[in-house]
Formats: sequence, C-alpha cells, structure tokens
Amino acid sequence: METLRVVCHQLAPRIGEADYNRALTERSIRAAANLNAHVVVLPELIQSGYVFTDQDEAHTVSETLDGPTLSLWKSLALELGIIIVAGFCERLSAGRVANSAALVEPTGRLTVYRKAHLWDREKLIFTPGDSPPPVVDTAVGRIGVMICYDLELPEWVRLPALAGADLLCAPVNWPEGARPAGERPAEIVRVQANAAVNRMFIAACDRYGEERGVNWVGGSVIVDADGYPLAGATSHPEEHQLVADLPLAQARDKSISGHNHVHQDRRPGLY
Amino acid sequence: METLRVVCHQLAPRIGEADYNRALTERSIRAAANLNAHVVVLPELIQSGYVFTDQDEAHTVSETLDGPTLSLWKSLALELGIIIVAGFCERLSAGRVANSAALVEPTGRLTVYRKAHLWDREKLIFTPGDSPPPVVDTAVGRIGVMICYDLELPEWVRLPALAGADLLCAPVNWPEGARPAGERPAEIVRVQANAAVNRMFIAACDRYGEERGVNWVGGSVIVDADGYPLAGATSHPEEHQLVADLPLAQARDKSISGHNHVHQDRRPGLY
Repeated sequence: METLRVVCHQLAPRIGEADYNRALTERSIRAAANLNAHVVVLPELIQSGYVFTDQDEAHTVSETLDGPTLSLWKSLALELGIIIVAGFCERLSAGRVANSAALVEPTGRLTVYRKAHLWDREKLIFTPGDSPPPVVDTAVGRIGVMICYDLELPEWVRLPALAGADLLCAPVNWPEGARPAGERPAEIVRVQANAAVNRMFIAACDRYGEERGVNWVGGSVIVDADGYPLAGATSHPEEHQLVADLPLAQARDKSISGHNHVHQDRRPGLY
Repeated sequence: METLRVVCHQLAPRIGEADYNRALTERSIRAAANLNAHVVVLPELIQSGYVFTDQDEAHTVSETLDGPTLSLWKSLALELGIIIVAGFCERLSAGRVANSAALVEPTGRLTVYRKAHLWDREKLIFTPGDSPPPVVDTAVGRIGVMICYDLELPEWVRLPALAGADLLCAPVNWPEGARPAGERPAEIVRVQANAAVNRMFIAACDRYGEERGVNWVGGSVIVDADGYPLAGATSHPEEHQLVADLPLAQARDKSISGHNHVHQDRRPGLY
C-alpha cells in the first residue's frame, strides 16, 4: 500500500474578505504541492471567515459550487496534482447558507459535505446538512470529510470509518477554552480517541487569528491509526504547516489482538 | 447537588487465589471507607485474576452471587456505608463463566453487569453479556458500570450516559502496549474522550502485577465531565489509591455553549 503525504495548513482568514482569503489558500496549496503532498487540508470556512453576525452577512460572502474560490481550487488541483480539502460558506437557495467543505481532486471531481452538527450560533446562521460524511475513493486512498463539532459525535465518526475511510480530513475552527495546566486541548484528545477506536488516520486543520473577540485553539493535528499524534497536537495559535506521511495499510488493518477487530467487535443489535 | 468522593484502588490479584484476593479487597475497601469515600472501584476480575488458560480453569475459581466474595462485599457495604464496584468471575450454568462486575450498595441491593465486548482470549473463556450497562440510582448519585474493552465502543458508553449516569465506574485490566515516548496511554485518552462527549465522570480502576507473562498499563484514572483527569492518568504499575471529589452537578449540565447540549445535539435518525 502507498504512503499518503498530508499537509494541514493552519491559516487566519479575514471575515468577509473573500478575495484575501482566496489568495491565502492559493499560497497555501502551492506550498503544500511544493512539499509533494498528496492531500492538503485547510480550515473550516477558510473562504469566508467564521464569526458572522447573522445569515444575511454570511450569505453576502457565500459562493456556489462554480464560484471563484471553488473554481480556483479546481484549477489548482488540476495544475498541481493535489487533493484539496477546505471549508467554505456555501450559497444555497432562498438566502440560506451551509457550513460546507469541498474535496477537490485533480480529476476535476468535486465532493461537497455540509456540516450536520452545528456549533453554538452557527444554528442561527447555517442550514445543517442531512447527508453522511462522504468517503471518496481517490487515487491515493479513501478519504472521508467532516467538519469541527461533527467530531464530537462518535456515532458520526463511525460512519465514514465503517464506509472504509483510511483518512478522515476535518477542517475545524476550535474556539479557545479553559483547560488545566499541562493538559492537551480536549478537542485534540477527542480526535485521538476517534482515530484509535476506528483505526483511521485523522487530519484536523484548525485556524488562528482573533476574529471579533473570538480566539482559537490553534490545535491542528494529524494522528495515526493508533490515535497518537504524528504532527501538531499542541495549542499553537500561529500560522503552522503540519506534514505527515501516512502508511495507509495501518488503517486497512482493523485487528488489535488475535481475536479483536475494531469494527467487527461492534454489537449494533444492542445499541 | 452533592459531591461524591470516589476511590480507585489499583491492586494486584493472584490468579486462582480467591482467598488471597478476597482479603486484598477487604483491606482496600476498609481503606477507602477510612477516607470517607462514597464509592470504591476495584479492578476487573479482582476476585479471580485474569490470565486464565481456559474456561475450565476460570470456572474453578468462579463464584455465584451468594459466593464468599460477594457475601463479603455485601457485608462490608452494610458495615461501612460504602458502595463497592468490583470485578469478579461469575459462575453461570453449564460450566460457563462471565467476566462480571458487581455494584454493591449499603442497602443490600446488588447489581451485576456482564462484560459485553470481550478482549482477545476472553472470547475463548467467557460468555458475553447481552444486557446494557446498568445505571443505578444510588443514595449518592446515578452510577453506571461497564468493564475494560467495553470503553472502546463509544456507542456502548452512550447508553449509560443517555440513561442519566453521573459517574461511570469501570473495572479494567489494561494490558501493557507500546506507545510513543511522552504520550499518555491510549486507554486513558479514550476514557477522557468518552467523558467529554457525554459530560459524565468516569472512574477506571486498572490493576498491576505481572501475571503469566502479561503486564499492565497501571493507568487507573478518574476524569471529570470535561474529560480532564482529576487523579491518575499516568502509567504507574504499582499499588495506587486514587481519590477524587466529584461535583455531580457538572454531569447533570449537558450544555456546552449557548446553543449546544451534548445529548440533544445527536441526530439518531442519521446514524
């Protein structure tokens, strides 16, 4: 099995400044391609910023699937031969918007996921998705996508894992919170556990940069199929490019003892 | 709401030596009562030891619910006014045995849970349980019980959490495994995540003491409803008594933002 090189690039978008943010993503995607990454993961809502006042403000900066940012990502994926996973504010019908993530392949295929579990005031702004996280059988491995708070619902993480994802890519915006001294942020701990109980790699790309009074963990992390970090895993709220080489065979082997298999050991009739 | 004092006492049973193990538990339960603990949690299979050759050997040391060990625990709970959660090898019919845990209250009520997800060669020895983890409405709070590998199935942990458990007590025997330098054992990370996504306290009591070539993490831990450790959380394979005072109101409040509730945010129709 191949080794997949993944980059998470922790960036700071500017709210409502789509042109600035688009240029930021281009710089980042080209930097990842220069490292020969197969996959680059960018933060949640990197195209738009996050702390919207209301749905109308989010709608103003939102884009459809043929908008300028997704068009740029498609052309960069083709030019550079790289898979891009990144968050954007998706324009729906009737003034509605979704907190979405695109998975863009060099083949031109575009897969879009809409966040199903909304965080805090997102419930006042975005329309939640009703479809499970996609698992895309790309040229370099099977890649699932979900967004931020979705990761706190282990039932949701199970779905792409059971569907065969080797790597789950998660654009996130983790708001900063209190934690005991010396402790790893709880968001990262949950990513580790999700990876371990499914034997699936996870690449979570956070943001940095204060926005309307909100700060962020800056906790981007890439974890292996045992749940241990390969890169990141600290609170580091600055621009930060993480790189890891993932031996995907680890994720295809779900056996954890002579008699245990993390998925076959489930007893769904009892849950 | 009350504060619940819980003790986890990491001990080393001797395989097959029920008399020795029974005396060990008496010493430990009395020590917890001397600390004014409301609840004491002891390891998985503390009554019997763990590394059995086969079902016949386990059957030899197994006990029914009126056997000498459970009778001792009932009398100590009554005498000392303490709740005891501890693992034992339960004698079933027809030569079968279960990897069980008892929750013994001062009232005389006995609740028994049989491990539903068996680890490795346990599958050759024990009959798995088919009933969900109990949640007992005790005088000091609502207490759930499960055992060791059960904790690696987040769907299973959801059940007592949704049933209202404030504290999940888990007797465990975590076999030692490799991990990167400086990393907390993955078993503890999973306990932390389970606690955080459910806002439920968890007290996991591990063992120590090499047994037939098997060593143990010695990773007993008590975590709060945010998923951060209150006691333990290192690999410390020696006798170890952990104590923590749990403000149970934290576990009754499932809100984590102005618009989020860790249980109501679930979308079971999609899972």
